[in-house]
Amino acid sequence: MVSASIITIGDELLIGQVADTNSSWMAQELNKVGINVKRRLAVGDLWEEIWKAVDTEAEHADIILITGGLGPTSDDITKNVLCEYFNGQMIVNEEALNNVKYLFEQVFKKTPTEGNLKQAEVPDVCEVIQNKRGSAPGMWFTKNEKVFVSMPGVPYEMMGIMTDSVLPRLQKMFKLPVIIHKTLLTAGVGESFLSDILRSFEIDLPKDIKLAYLPSYGMVRLRLSTSATSKESEDVINSMFEELEQLVKEYVVTNIDEPMQAVVGKLLLKKKQTICTAESCTGGYISHVITSVPGASAYYSGSIISYSYEVKETLLNVSPNTLTSFGAVSEETVREMAKGALEKLKTDYVIAVSGIMGPEGGTPDKPVGTVWIAVGNNKEIVARRLQFRFERHKNIELTALNSLDMLRRFILSY
Amino acid sequence: MVSASIITIGDELLIGQVADTNSSWMAQELNKVGINVKRRLAVGDLWEEIWKAVDTEAEHADIILITGGLGPTSDDITKNVLCEYFNGQMIVNEEALNNVKYLFEQVFKKTPTEGNLKQAEVPDVCEVIQNKRGSAPGMWFTKNEKVFVSMPGVPYEMMGIMTDSVLPRLQKMFKLPVIIHKTLLTAGVGESFLSDILRSFEIDLPKDIKLAYLPSYGMVRLRLSTSATSKESEDVINSMFEELEQLVKEYVVTNIDEPMQAVVGKLLLKKKQTICTAESCTGGYISHVITSVPGASAYYSGSIISYSYEVKETLLNVSPNTLTSFGAVSEETVREMAKGALEKLKTDYVIAVSGIMGPEGGTPDKPVGTVWIAVGNNKEIVARRLQFRFERHKNIELTALNSLDMLRRFILSY
Repeated sequence: MVSASIITIGDELLIGQVADTNSSWMAQELNKVGINVKRRLAVGDLWEEIWKAVDTEAEHADIILITGGLGPTSDDITKNVLCEYFNGQMIVNEEALNNVKYLFEQVFKKTPTEGNLKQAEVPDVCEVIQNKRGSAPGMWFTKNEKVFVSMPGVPYEMMGIMTDSVLPRLQKMFKLPVIIHKTLLTAGVGESFLSDILRSFEIDLPKDIKLAYLPSYGMVRLRLSTSATSKESEDVINSMFEELEQLVKEYVVTNIDEPMQAVVGKLLLKKKQTICTAESCTGGYISHVITSVPGASAYYSGSIISYSYEVKETLLNVSPNTLTSFGAVSEETVREMAKGALEKLKTDYVIAVSGIMGPEGGTPDKPVGTVWIAVGNNKEIVARRLQFRFERHKNIELTALNSLDMLRRFILSY
Repeated sequence: MVSASIITIGDELLIGQVADTNSSWMAQELNKVGINVKRRLAVGDLWEEIWKAVDTEAEHADIILITGGLGPTSDDITKNVLCEYFNGQMIVNEEALNNVKYLFEQVFKKTPTEGNLKQAEVPDVCEVIQNKRGSAPGMWFTKNEKVFVSMPGVPYEMMGIMTDSVLPRLQKMFKLPVIIHKTLLTAGVGESFLSDILRSFEIDLPKDIKLAYLPSYGMVRLRLSTSATSKESEDVINSMFEELEQLVKEYVVTNIDEPMQAVVGKLLLKKKQTICTAESCTGGYISHVITSVPGASAYYSGSIISYSYEVKETLLNVSPNTLTSFGAVSEETVREMAKGALEKLKTDYVIAVSGIMGPEGGTPDKPVGTVWIAVGNNKEIVARRLQFRFERHKNIELTALNSLDMLRRFILSY
């Protein structure tokens, strides 16, 4: 199999100031076209570290994809390292220069600096890949039958270069197998319990099919993978996948690789029904998750985010009495929030949540991580108390996912 | 300097199904205590790959921190690889076994599976680090004066083990310098223009102080770093930092390493004033960003998320005439949304946004990425049209950040 290693360059990755989103996107795209990503490596903006990284990763893989360190400032040295590594000389690439000038003069309406113009310089031993989305061009090198591609670290620019140039060219260059991943999303059951259910299924799996468990707080993805060389091997993984789905049927959320919010969205689209949310502790996050799906406007109308008692009363019609008697984090309050939102936003379904996400605000009765969730429609509202035990953001995320799963089950039961 | 390499293990990292959040958190914590992270490497759940990773990273660093592959299922093989690599035998660790039993019987109220119980087995050549947050214990190995620590991949569990055991122990074991990072967040100016302003400042920097540019869509972080060995070197970086701040004064958002929403939050706290949002295209994301700051309830009351025309009309009092004459994405609409939200939510300030985030919905006049933002108070509302050119999530994120920066400038101007 053709293999790749991804190198991301930048001190910010090593002090943890910035999360590396590039390499997971690249890994995804490479896998789709049948290239096996063997390693992902991050190193700092240091001459020796970059040199060593390029040199050693070439021992591990056929294709070395490099992002970062191509900016206009003096801490960006990737291009110079590569120039020396591949024994080149810097020359100005006319097309890249025109691109920099065009970008600054026409798009940014600013005069390019010397540093910007220097971005059009490239080693004479590379093939230049023009960057339609920014000023630093990509560079394609070959050495000992290995391919090395250097791209800017700005995700939007890297994605453009990958999609338009690098991936099509790699597909032409190598004979690539079709890798098939089939993923089942489950909710409400732990990894080890699934593993128990699947013990004999796993033992009987053909050895070219691999089963992976990908747990993520309350949900587990089960993924079957194989590199299909024939129609036959495709049929085998399909039938194994059907068997898998049957075995864990009661926990399955979806049998394609899509997030919970897409599953709920499709369900609502199919039923031509709508949803709104009334959020307290999640502060708009559930609404954000729902609207992260393009086209959500077909089933999502809006939300009322009520962080204060006053907004709960005035906009969601929660009775002051309920708030003082039971507190904002209570079954009574989320039920009234749900009812209020349905009246105001006139949708078919509603999700309402109220909880204590931390780090402050916990009490002995209602510690940090306590949350009340209500889902329902005009006829019936179901409420449930959940207890998480994580930090603020994780608790917010879990509340969103669990409330969407509760709504999904509610819709299916109707 | 004492150096570390972080190895994350899991096929899901190499097919890009899951983003690696562990290693950036670990990098941050290691830097804080004066350990220099040299490399971050991700490899799959393959015997040979894990073996090679452990073996080669030991050539690069003094401390090798490993996460992942300790789960109860058959694809988790890290522990077995390490056992063989360090020439050990598997034995049951009584304390870990009691922990597994306690967790399942008392917390999860389930019978542990065989796989769960097996998590209490460890190589006899390691020191066990108990895991208070889950069933897989951490393991501490030493070889040729290098330290190797293996931890579970579940972030919450890894963080507990790092904070409670690994970091304090490393601090005791090594003589660590104090690394100082000082960060300036700027907005509204590009990396190359900052670089031009800072050219002579950079040339004059003492050679043990490093300046880094960390751009992230419309904002640039400027970071000075040094490893301080004396009070004197601390004074030097402080005075260089003051000089830096002066040079780029007009673009500075904050001179500590905190996000935009924390800056806005502090400003509101100081003024004892409140804020709400009226969101369309961002679908609750601005509200989420504001409430990601613990304690935001002191200045954030709530929001109305109006995805549909109807909700804009009924809850935000946007006139139907405005919507039909100018469209939902228009100065007129965001101004009315802002006004409506101030009336309904009774806060001091408001942010209102409406735009086209993509991938669908663009027109020649208002292409994808067009957004109208209004910020203001009861006396004055300022509106501005921005044009982004990214994909959906990035456009949403940029709208949130830019609207918060607009509000920040508005508050400061009052």
